Amino acid sequence: MCDIIRSLQVRGAPLIGIAAALALAVYVKSGATHSEILQAAHELSSARPTAVNLKHCIDKQLAAWEKTQDMHSIITTAEELFHEDVKLCEQIAHHGAVLIDKDDCILTHCNTGCLVTAGIGTALGIITRAHHNGKNVHVYVDETRPLLQGARLTTWELQAVKVPYTLICDNAAASLMQQNKIQKIIVGADRIAKNGDVANKIGTYNLAVLAKYHQIPFYVAAPYTTFDAHCQSGENIFIEQRRADEVRGVHNTVWSKNVPDHAVFNPAFDVTPAKLVTAYILDAGIKYSNDL
Amino acid sequence: MCDIIRSLQVRGAPLIGIAAALALAVYVKSGATHSEILQAAHELSSARPTAVNLKHCIDKQLAAWEKTQDMHSIITTAEELFHEDVKLCEQIAHHGAVLIDKDDCILTHCNTGCLVTAGIGTALGIITRAHHNGKNVHVYVDETRPLLQGARLTTWELQAVKVPYTLICDNAAASLMQQNKIQKIIVGADRIAKNGDVANKIGTYNLAVLAKYHQIPFYVAAPYTTFDAHCQSGENIFIEQRRADEVRGVHNTVWSKNVPDHAVFNPAFDVTPAKLVTAYILDAGIKYSNDL
Repeated sequence: MCDIIRSLQVRGAPLIGIAAALALAVYVKSGATHSEILQAAHELSSARPTAVNLKHCIDKQLAAWEKTQDMHSIITTAEELFHEDVKLCEQIAHHGAVLIDKDDCILTHCNTGCLVTAGIGTALGIITRAHHNGKNVHVYVDETRPLLQGARLTTWELQAVKVPYTLICDNAAASLMQQNKIQKIIVGADRIAKNGDVANKIGTYNLAVLAKYHQIPFYVAAPYTTFDAHCQSGENIFIEQRRADEVRGVHNTVWSKNVPDHAVFNPAFDVTPAKLVTAYILDAGIKYSNDL
Repeated sequence: MCDIIRSLQVRGAPLIGIAAALALAVYVKSGATHSEILQAAHELSSARPTAVNLKHCIDKQLAAWEKTQDMHSIITTAEELFHEDVKLCEQIAHHGAVLIDKDDCILTHCNTGCLVTAGIGTALGIITRAHHNGKNVHVYVDETRPLLQGARLTTWELQAVKVPYTLICDNAAASLMQQNKIQKIIVGADRIAKNGDVANKIGTYNLAVLAKYHQIPFYVAAPYTTFDAHCQSGENIFIEQRRADEVRGVHNTVWSKNVPDHAVFNPAFDVTPAKLVTAYILDAGIKYSNDL
């Protein structure tokens, strides 16, 4: 599971946490010893550094184990975390859909639907719910370089639930805002600091600045599990740097093969300051940075 | 040459103009008739709609022909346009290099060097000149989706002239600005309206907004041939829409094959309003929008 998480076969903050918790549960079921479980919990917790849900889930399992002194509670906690995430998504969608107006065109970044949560997703769950509520939404999908989660995954999800969309290069988002073609921006989050600063997929901060300039509401949708109570502000969030190959090409197509590793900068995330977030769409309801 | 221009084997506003002019000259030399030349001039002029240099060059050749009543002047004009472009690049580099401070990190977009002009380039010519003047510059290169001119061409040019650079996904530019890692932004232009509005590669307007928010100087480098005296403002600039395939993938690698044509928005350019341009670096010197 550590390899699967590191290689992004499982990605998206909520799903990473759930997948790690389930992996630990399976390990318990397979008869692992106390020390093996502790070692696995440690390795899973640190498989990726930015999304905090990973640590949240494993910590919850270890706390249950300590409390009950029964290793089986690691399994029941994994099941609880799974079912809780489904519910959290439902609550986020419920609160968020209210913010969507009829005929809104909504820009989103990366992938935040059923492929990154145990339920219907965060930002994409809201959009899907608004669609099902008859809001006649249209989604502009940022392709989301370097790993193209928007182009590969979000378009697939929207197609599956029959929500109309338009795929764009990340570069085209500003031009659409200039032409008043975007009414809302909704993104997910990988970690939210106590002051409301948000770490999310690289390019999110770009959208937040554009939203500010064009006076477009910029919403961050996330479950409480994405909040890091130990993190005061975005400055304390460690940003994962990933391989140069992700920028030099896609899969086996490499268009910049002569560019050396040291000449590529590839941060997986950026940090959006709380002041650029119009509101947080949480399982507990709509919140503003001074309510967090 | 029309096919070559349309398929972007020759691209970049200045070079499109020069290449079209030389193609028309070769056609004259090959013995084309008056009406064939007029037809070819018309077709070349409209091979791509946004860059105005194309029209500028062909119009200049036709005007010379009309004035001299000698078809051979189409050839001499092509040669003049070629040599003039080399000189214009030198002048732009000369004026622009003065604006660069020692140890500046400069962000650039798309490709604006010797592969898009007859000379050393526009924005990239300035950067190269500043480097040769010992300014110890570092260049952040936007990969420039969808066609990756930054990743494929600008990195190649900078490597050839030994200017240090870092390749980034377009999404990472905002994050670098937030961290004070960018001191200047310099881009080229495909067409500049009378009021100073600039059509340039998609993503340019995005950078201009980011520059404004982060209080980073945003410069547009261009020869006088990129100005369109008949165009009052950016609203009058026709923006070329290109094929969905450019967004769905790269070369033979397609990652969004299920996304239908109608669900892709692929404008080749965007328009940056004059108010976001700190200054224009022209062959005639540094100008501000109220001087144009």
